[in-house]
Parts: sequence; structure tokens; C-alpha cells
Amino acid sequence: MKLDRLLGFRFKETPSDCQIASHILMTRGGYIKNVGSGIFSLYPPAKRIAQKIERIMREEMDAIGGQEVMFPVAMPAALWKESGRFESVGSELLRFSDRAGADMVLGMTHEEAVVHLARGAAQSYAQYPFMVYQIQTKFRDEPRARGGLIRTREFTMKDGYSFHTSQEDLEEYYQKAYQAYVNIFRRCGIPEVVSVRSDSGMMGGKVAHEFMLVTDVGEDYLAICGECGFAANMEVAETVVENAPREDRPLEKVHTPDIKTIDGLCGFLGIAPEQTCKAVIYQKASDGALVVIFIRGDLEVNEVKLRNLLGEEAHPALNAEEVLPCGFIGPLGLPRGLTTIFDRSLRGAKNLATGACEADWHYTGFSPERDVAGIACSDVAKIQEGGVCPQCGKPAIGLKRGVEVGNIFQLGTKYTKAMNMTYLDQNGKPQYPIMGCYGIGTGRLMASVCEARHDAYGPVWPMSIAPWQVEICALRAQEPGVAAAADALYAALESAGIEVLYDDRKVSAGVMFSDADLLGVPVRAIISPKTLERGVVELKTRDKTLQKEIALEHAAQEIAALVKELMKQGGYHNA
Amino acid sequence: MKLDRLLGFRFKETPSDCQIASHILMTRGGYIKNVGSGIFSLYPPAKRIAQKIERIMREEMDAIGGQEVMFPVAMPAALWKESGRFESVGSELLRFSDRAGADMVLGMTHEEAVVHLARGAAQSYAQYPFMVYQIQTKFRDEPRARGGLIRTREFTMKDGYSFHTSQEDLEEYYQKAYQAYVNIFRRCGIPEVVSVRSDSGMMGGKVAHEFMLVTDVGEDYLAICGECGFAANMEVAETVVENAPREDRPLEKVHTPDIKTIDGLCGFLGIAPEQTCKAVIYQKASDGALVVIFIRGDLEVNEVKLRNLLGEEAHPALNAEEVLPCGFIGPLGLPRGLTTIFDRSLRGAKNLATGACEADWHYTGFSPERDVAGIACSDVAKIQEGGVCPQCGKPAIGLKRGVEVGNIFQLGTKYTKAMNMTYLDQNGKPQYPIMGCYGIGTGRLMASVCEARHDAYGPVWPMSIAPWQVEICALRAQEPGVAAAADALYAALESAGIEVLYDDRKVSAGVMFSDADLLGVPVRAIISPKTLERGVVELKTRDKTLQKEIALEHAAQEIAALVKELMKQGGYHNA
Repeated sequence: MKLDRLLGFRFKETPSDCQIASHILMTRGGYIKNVGSGIFSLYPPAKRIAQKIERIMREEMDAIGGQEVMFPVAMPAALWKESGRFESVGSELLRFSDRAGADMVLGMTHEEAVVHLARGAAQSYAQYPFMVYQIQTKFRDEPRARGGLIRTREFTMKDGYSFHTSQEDLEEYYQKAYQAYVNIFRRCGIPEVVSVRSDSGMMGGKVAHEFMLVTDVGEDYLAICGECGFAANMEVAETVVENAPREDRPLEKVHTPDIKTIDGLCGFLGIAPEQTCKAVIYQKASDGALVVIFIRGDLEVNEVKLRNLLGEEAHPALNAEEVLPCGFIGPLGLPRGLTTIFDRSLRGAKNLATGACEADWHYTGFSPERDVAGIACSDVAKIQEGGVCPQCGKPAIGLKRGVEVGNIFQLGTKYTKAMNMTYLDQNGKPQYPIMGCYGIGTGRLMASVCEARHDAYGPVWPMSIAPWQVEICALRAQEPGVAAAADALYAALESAGIEVLYDDRKVSAGVMFSDADLLGVPVRAIISPKTLERGVVELKTRDKTLQKEIALEHAAQEIAALVKELMKQGGYHNA
Repeated sequence: MKLDRLLGFRFKETPSDCQIASHILMTRGGYIKNVGSGIFSLYPPAKRIAQKIERIMREEMDAIGGQEVMFPVAMPAALWKESGRFESVGSELLRFSDRAGADMVLGMTHEEAVVHLARGAAQSYAQYPFMVYQIQTKFRDEPRARGGLIRTREFTMKDGYSFHTSQEDLEEYYQKAYQAYVNIFRRCGIPEVVSVRSDSGMMGGKVAHEFMLVTDVGEDYLAICGECGFAANMEVAETVVENAPREDRPLEKVHTPDIKTIDGLCGFLGIAPEQTCKAVIYQKASDGALVVIFIRGDLEVNEVKLRNLLGEEAHPALNAEEVLPCGFIGPLGLPRGLTTIFDRSLRGAKNLATGACEADWHYTGFSPERDVAGIACSDVAKIQEGGVCPQCGKPAIGLKRGVEVGNIFQLGTKYTKAMNMTYLDQNGKPQYPIMGCYGIGTGRLMASVCEARHDAYGPVWPMSIAPWQVEICALRAQEPGVAAAADALYAALESAGIEVLYDDRKVSAGVMFSDADLLGVPVRAIISPKTLERGVVELKTRDKTLQKEIALEHAAQEIAALVKELMKQGGYHNA
């Protein structure tokens, strides 16, 4: 298409409300327009990229037997009441009433809808396994929409759901879906996406993986082993703590006036934080009951692990000092009836300092396994930079930030049981199908590719998802010969089936090239009075790996061949 | 794909909640599942049809220069407050609050969103005209969802919006859009769709067309001239009334005790209803003020015309008898200060009977133009079966029911003015762009094709939008040779790029064929032990225009050629 007809505009200034590269460049490049908090309209270039991403997702889902369906955006709350999520999910689930006063929700995920569609339609074991997916708008009332398309409230998502008659079959299919996801990210031009074990959160189920693009703008933290390649979301990464061998010492009560912090205690006693046992106090969301966690003084509590251990949400305690001598809490002398948790970092630890449960007093010489009868330890600590890898055992854990670009879950029977979906097995006995689910957000993936593939001047779109494949820049198109040559090249490329953006505006080379940089088209063909003098077209790739002159007479064939080559190579020259 | 893997099921019984053919057949055929009032999920066959319809719409929109974009489903109410529609549109606009308490709406149409996207992006006259479109979910909180996909609350719609610098340019583009719509309906297999002039309703603007499929299940009434082809929605069709030439008579007050109806009056006086002048009483929605309409006794008031004349909504009056002598109201002696409207049917009428504005009394000999000073007449009557065509003047108007499958509007500057979108004209002066808008609902179009193309056994999908192009029925696939021959044909057709549904289930021929009828695949290839004996495949079209045997060895080529031929012919054999 001609650039002068393209709806949208490009500009130089960084918008004040944009912090990250993809948000800045996609706003400056005329891709997106903010309509409200976390809500965007897409201009044609972004819509074109989205459609290419969605075509790749469709192809990969179809290749693993997926059947495309469509669920509603607005659903009766009754469905979500069946699964129990109408109550259990927080205010990110948008609830409203229709004109008749009926409770409704906006779909943020479609487990309920797929069970509603599939139950009754797959009543014999012979119909299993199957997978259905949709690509549809979702709404999640995020409290903190941010980063342009990285975290929006309304978004388009490919969500797939598989149904199985055994855990083994789910696991086998899960591997196929995993591989399809790897293919999708590779084909979209970000093969560096890593998969990590993750928490299944509100989805239910046990095994889950997130696909993460490692980038400083990510909101998630990943624990990645520099030795063996182990990778997990920090939320679920097992924390392995080794306690240096030390001798037991007798318990001794020490007067520590007004010393309420680990730092203060370490300074006062001349010890390191790992020689202390810290108390951290949480409160259960359900009834406000206090939960006291004891953990080695140099470590932090991982709230996701805590939630999974408790089986419910918990938050840092409010007003615990009304009940407990905060700053001086320890495992010995604690009031009865409190829920207490000992972190695994206390296993094998000896001779620690800890609170005496009395204002201004601590103990030294505390050995948890000696001094606490029947102690049981759980893993509730955050994994740390330089920590021990739970896979290879080497102290090589590095923490990185990442954006979650996709996730897959083994859901189990949570939804089929709650919504009473059954099939008859080979013995004619009713059984609950076992589910998996598989999600990728189109917009977040697009923005993530932009995060991974841009320079200071704009996005560097991979050929596979670029809004156009070739941009023709006709400089000084009003001078004799330029328009004719550029028009002819445009026509020849279009008739070869190449997607061409054609810029013949009467603007300076500076404006034309900075616009081209912002639109990020992978191949650029420049025609000007100067190139025509030499009978050539200047050919460049947006990623700067190629720059050469080619004969005008063969330009169309050569460019078409280059496009084809780049499509094959996953989008990049010399990739 | 193999039919035994297809999610969904088919059955014989007519569901109790289904009245019309498309709803019945698409439910019985495993196309749709009701999720809530006016809300459906689509099984794979319906999703496949929808995608083909959407591809056709995209191609036709792109061919007239459309650029695809994407607007949000959930929008801040602020946008709709800018245009004034947050207040003016009724409860079909779904309003809700987000977690922060902000007013939001679910998009039922996207004029506000497109102006928001385009304003600022098209500031020079040189960037006009342009058209953008999207294919996206919409929600309209219909009080009466009905007829399966014919009238839903949530639906997918292709909505396009064009922007122009002059009315002439809009009209020129409107013609192109009109033709694109004709192409879409033809390509989707319902070339018989008629276009009619329509009311622009809440959209604003003056000129509008609806594309109507004439069918008894339609909710709209169309006035179609049997002589000249004139067609209009009954809501806007001009009513031409000819009054038989009669003599003036003197006014005479007649005692008509307790005679309150036109029928009663005609019986009492021995005259026909067209010899009376009837009063019909409405009330303005804004302030409840009464509006008295005088109209010839044999005609009815058209409420859409009345609304357009008043410039606001009106409804039949409640409790008018508290103020007026109902049953005896006429133009003479009416209390002052009432809004009165005279229908054009009173023009040239003489010697009518009408109320005397006094209980139990009427006038005879009433000649409106003689007896009412300064009378002005407007067209507020419903056009009638057998009425006079406003185009050719012949009494050949027929009334038919229709389903609106698309509409196009000349919107004017309603939205650009309200939302302050301007461009600079050639003189550097700011101007408001003039808009057109163009809508088609995917689901309603799909259901309409089913209404127009079905038999007692199921839908007869046109090749262009059929869920699959060919269905292979392998009867008694367990017998020697059948599975091998059918598998080979399946593989050959798939590798020729044909979309094949393959049924090799161990079911009776009756079950297999009734399922095939419900799935409506245009070409059916039957392989059985009997056909194999003769070395043939039985070939049938779903529309029953073709039934023959072809040699097994050339079956794939012959079927592929037939598919190609049907694709060309707009979907039907012998079309």
C-alpha cells in the first residue's frame, strides 16, 4: 500500500506516559492508540502483525489436532458459579449485570466455557483426546495496566483446552503443545524464549510452564542456573539452602534492649544474618488468623510458596504487635494456637540467635532441630542470586527478569468435576476427563518481539510477522524517472505476491527513513535520482546485516528472492 | 478431518426452544450451543463457516481500499459521553463500572472508537478519503434475543467507517461500498438479497440502505413494488394515498351515542373507513406532551416516521381520556396548545366523518383543506399491501418480511462534530470530515444463508462458505477394501488442497447420511462394498442437482474439478 494512505502518524518525541521500548516505539510508530487504562485500538500496522502472529498460532494448533471454536466474551455468571470461580477470583474478574439484572462476567479465560461446550458432546472414551482453541478478546480488570501491550486489561488471546482420559495421555499431549509453543515463538522471531516451571495460580492443577522472554522490562523473576540450564519462575523455584557445619551451643537468654531488626541483632552480637532465625508474620485472607514463619535471617519469604502451602491467600500481618512482641519473636515461648511454619533453611542449622518472645530479649545458641519438638520444615524461601541450583546442586542460580509470553497448564479434573462433565470409560463407568490448557496473548507477544528486536530508531520486525515485507522508498519522486521506476518496482513486487509499503511522499530523506525505521519493514529498497543514474536500487535490511546495490532491471526478482530467503530463516538475515 | 474427531453432536429432535429453521438445524447439526440469553458458543463447523464469510468480507473491504484495524470491546464511557450517545442510547447499550468505579460500555457499534482513532491521524485534506474496518465482537443488550444467530446479544461484526471531505465524495464511496456489499452476499451464496432504503435510527445521518434477505422469519417488513422493483423498509417507505374524487358537503354535527371506534362509526353511518378522519394519540418521550395525529380512517400511524418528524421518541398515549374525549376526537374544537399532525392521506379528502371533540358527537361533511385553516400535511402513515408505489405510481406495493443482513449509512458529521475531529482544507481552514459506516454481522449472515439454503434434512451450504468442501462417506468401512479406498481418496483430496470431512464411523448408512445432511457439505463421495464391486464412487451434491457414479481411479481428480467449478459458480451446481 501507499504510505500516504496509511492511517496513523509517526513522531519523534517519547510520549510522557511510556516507559518501555515497545510501548514507546509502537506509540511513536503509529501502531497503537490508548483508549483508556489498559485498553488500546490498533492501527493497521499492528493489526497486520497481529494477524500474522495469529496465523502462525492457528497453523501450530491445527498441526497438533486443534479444532478452532469460539466462546463468548460476555458470559452468564452462572457458569462461573458452577466452577466456583465467581467467588474465588478477585476483582480482576469483571462482573456486571445485564438489563434484566442477571449477573454476567467478561471472560478472562474460558475453562468454564469450554467445559460447557464440550460436556454432552464427548460422552464416550472413544472421542478422547481432543483439543479445541479460540482466538478471542478477553478482559482482565488489572489494577496495574502498564507497558503498552505488555500488560493490558483487554487483550486478544489464543486459548486452547485439551481433554484426556488419563494423566499419561495428558502428559503426552502436553509435550506436543509444549513443542508447538516452542515453534510459535521461533516462527515469530524470538527463539530465545525460555520455558520455566511455574505456579498454576488461580487455574488449579499442578504442572505448569511459562514461556518467558528474558528482558529487563519483565515483571516476573526467573531463576536460571548458569551451569545446567535449569529455569523456573522465582515463584516456584525450589530453594536449596546449605548450612555451614557448626557446633551446638547451649541456649542462652540475652538482654537486647530495643534491638528489633536482624541487622541490629547481628551488629549487637557480631554475627552474620545466616546465624539468625527470623520470624515473619502473615495473616490468612479467609479469617485473618496470624501465621508465623521462621526462616534463616538472610532469606525472604516467597508469598506464592506460602499461599500454596496454606492453600489460601495470605498477606503480611497488620497490627501483629497488639498480640505479639514484634522484633523479639522466636520459636520458643510463642503463644499457643498460632500457625507456625519453619522454612527448610532451618534444617541442619545450629547455634542461631532468635527472639525470646519477650520484649528486649533474644536467645543465642538456638538449634531448631534440637530445641523444637517435632519440627517439620517446608520450602517457603525465595531463591536467591548465587543460590544452589535444585537440579545440579551448584551455586550457580542467576535471577533475571522476564515477560511471560505464553503458558501451559495441566489442569487435572478441577473444572470437569466442578461442572460435572463426564464420559463413559471402556467399562461403561462415568469418569471425569482430565484437562490441559494453553494460552498465548497476541498483543503481548507482538510487544515482546518488539522488546527483543528493536534499535534506537524503531522495531526490527522479523519477516514472518512484519506488517509488510518490503518498503520502497522513492526519494525525490517528483524528479524525472524516479516515480516511474518506483511505480514499476511496486507493481512487479505486488504481482509477485510480496507485501509492499510504498513511500513516494514529497518529504526529506531524513523523514522518510525515520518513518521507515519506525515501521520496521525488514527489507528496504531505495530509489532516487542518484541510484537511477547508476541504474541501481539500494537494498538494505532493517537489521543492518545487508546493504548493497542491485541492478534496477533485476531488482524485483532479487528482492522477491531475498524475502523468500528471510521467510525461511525465521525472519532474519544471517540468522 | 475425521468426523469421529469432530467436537459436537447431531440429533433428530427439534429442540423446544427453537422456532426457525436455521436455529433448529444449526442446533441439531452441532454448530452452536446456547450459553445464555442471546449468547452462543460456536462448534468447529460454525467457526469454519464464519472464517470463510470473514475472509470474503476482508477481500471485498480491501478491494475498496479498506484498512483493517481493531477497536476495543470494552470502552471508557467517556468516549460515548463525547458523542452524546451514553445518554441518548437506551438500555441496549451495556453500561458497567470497572474495579476503579469508572463508567464503561461494551461496544455495540464503534463510531466513537473510530473517531478517537482517526482524529489527530488525518489532519490534512490530502489524507482523505480513507476507510477503516474491523471484524470484532460486539454486545447489544437486546430485550428480545431470538432465532439462534439471527438476533443475538453478543455477535461478531464487520464494521467499516469511511471519512470524506465532501458529500459528493461520500456518495461516490457509498456506491462502492454498496457494490462491495452486493458482492459479499453474492459470494456467500445469497445473491437474492435486496437493498432497501432505511431509517438511520440512532446512527444519525440521512441516507441509509439495508440489505435484506426476504424470508418469512424476518422481523422487518419491506415494501416492494411488483411493477418497478422499488424496495424500502416499511419504516421509511413513502406512503402515497389517492383520495377518490368526491364532492364537498356542509359540516353537520351528528349524535353518535357511545360510538367510539372507526368500525362502529362506519356501521352507524353506512360509510367506508376511508371516508373517515381518525385521531391517534401519542405522547412525547421527553416531556409526556400529547401529540394528536389525524389520519384517514383506513390507515395506521408509522411510528418511525412520527419519531423522525417529531425529532424524538414517542409512544401511544397513556390516560389521554383524562384530558380528551377519546373516541370522539376530531380536528375541530380540539383544546388549544396540543401538537397536531395531519397525515398526507387527508390531502384532497372531502366529506369525511370525524369526531366533534364532544362525547357522543361526530361531524360529517368534514373537508380537511376547507375546514382547517392553514393545514399542513406530513407523511406519517404506514404503507399498505396493494398501496401506490412512490416510484412508479402503480398500486403494486407488496409487503414482505425480511432479515437485515447488512446496512450502510451516510452518517454526515454527527460524530466528527460532537467529538471535534477536524482536518485542514486546501485553504488551511478546519473542517469536519463527513462519515459513512458499513456493517455486516457474521453470525446473522451465516444463519441467513441457512434460512435461504436448507431442506428438511439440514443446511445446504454454498461451496464458498461450506465448513468443508467434500465429505467422504465410507459405508461398512470394516469390510475389505473400503477403508483402503476411502483412505486413499481422503489423502488424494487433502493433498490436492481440498477440505475434506471423512466419515468412516461404524454406523448405519441412515445415521451417516442424516449426519451428512446436517453438516451440509456441498459434495458427497460415497464408497461402500457395493460401489467398490463396480469400481466406482457415488458422487452427489447436497443440493441434489447432481448424482452420478464416477470411476474410483479418477475420483480424486474429478471431485477436485467439481469443487473448483462450484467455487466459480458462486457455490451451486447449475447456478
